[in-house]
This record gives sequence, structure tokens and C-alpha cells, in this order.
Amino acid sequence: AQMSLEQGYESRREFDARYRLLLRTVHDAVVFVSVTDGRVKDANEPAAALLGTTRDELVGASFAQEFRDKRREEFIDGLVNTSFSDAAAGVEVQTRRSRKKVVVTPSVFRAGGERVLICRLTTSGDVSAKHDELS
Amino acid sequence: AQMSLEQGYESRREFDARYRLLLRTVHDAVVFVSVTDGRVKDANEPAAALLGTTRDELVGASFAQEFRDKRREEFIDGLVNTSFSDAAAGVEVQTRRSRKKVVVTPSVFRAGGERVLICRLTTSGDVSAKHDELS
Repeated sequence: AQMSLEQGYESRREFDARYRLLLRTVHDAVVFVSVTDGRVKDANEPAAALLGTTRDELVGASFAQEFRDKRREEFIDGLVNTSFSDAAAGVEVQTRRSRKKVVVTPSVFRAGGERVLICRLTTSGDVSAKHDELS
Repeated sequence: AQMSLEQGYESRREFDARYRLLLRTVHDAVVFVSVTDGRVKDANEPAAALLGTTRDELVGASFAQEFRDKRREEFIDGLVNTSFSDAAAGVEVQTRRSRKKVVVTPSVFRAGGERVLICRLTTSGDVSAKHDELS
């Protein structure tokens, strides 16, 4: 619903359909974020649940505001830089609503003329406890 | 590489890009299967690893042949029927190469004029052990 679609091309609709079903099917928590304005372009239910909100509330919101003590520009720049430095690296943050420690693992890519971050979210316990001192 | 793309539409490329990155990012094992011919349209590395093969080998192959004692038509029809009967239901099978017990959880959707199954694969131990007697 958040995606501005032009209708009419069968092949585009195929990827649109595959994309939507894939995002709905997976249990991984995933958020797409615009690098330009830091807003959530799309997200799935597991991501919304981890952040203590709903998918409808999350899509269109500022991604940085979902976390404690994160300012938009620095946070988004940090995710982009992390994505360039190491494909498997994550940034540990604390969610604003649910106060959970979450690791955000970003990749940046170019889509539709703009840069977009795809972020996989895991609770810190899923990965390691070594980041505890950071927040 | 398996997807027959027409180039040229920015918005289609955006979904194409999002789709590919999403499939590459998630740790869930996912396979897209054509209902028409039972062949794998796309799959990710976790799915290939679970089936004991590579992504390159898997894409284009008959999905039924990845499992023991499964004939194409019955297997694909069974997945379609399971998808209609219960959104969360899975079919337990045994992989041909790695001899692992795997639960295939299918959803059917229409994309680009044909019906496609999106299948999430989990090892049986991830879900429950109650299907042990089935294979």
C-alpha cells in the first residue's frame, strides 16, 4: 500500500507479487529504509512485533525514531557505513517502545533511482551478548 | 538469472531489486516453484544448503526430484491443496541428497499470469517431531 505503483506491466507485477509474498512468508524480521529521508519504505510483521508496533504504524515512520537515543542522519549514515565495511556486520541498538536490545544488520542497494537499506533485525541474544556494554 | 526480464521500467526494476536483495538477505530457506511445470523458479542459499545442493543446480530443476519418493504431479498438487487448506500447514518430506526430514510450508499465488508456489523449508526438528512416523 505504501509503494507508489504504476500498473500495467505483467513482468513488473510478477516481481511485485513475488516480493510481497516473500516479505510476508519469511520469519526473519526485515525493514526497508530510504537512505534519502530515513523513512521505512516497507517492513514485515516480525519486524513490527520486535519493535513493539504494527506494520501499518511502522511503514512511513522514521526508522531512527524506533530506537533510543538515535538521531536520523547519524543513524542512517552509520547503517550505510556498516553495510560498506562488512557484509555480516550489525549495529546494536535498543528499541524505544519495547526496550529490547536488537542488532540491525544492513545492506545498501540502489532501487528505482534511490539508495535503499535492507535491514535484518535480530534480538541480541540470537547473535551474541558481547555488545551489551554499548547501550 | 533464471528470470526472463524485460528491461526498461524504473518501478519494475525497484521491485526486482528489492525482491533479489530480500531473497539474499533472509536466513529462512525459501523456494519459488511453478505450479505449471513443477520447476524451481528461484531459491536462496539456505534452501539449497538444506537440500544438499547449490542454488545454481536447484534453480530450473524439478522440485519433486529433490525429495525421496515424490512424483511431480502428486507432489505439486499436494502442496497447492495444503496451501488452500491451512495457511500454516506443512508437508513433511525427506530430501533425496541429504536424507534430511524437511517440512515444506507452501502458499500459492498468481504472478505474471501463472500460479506460483512459495515454499518455506524447515528441518522437522525446528517444528515438531510428531511427523516422524510419516517417512
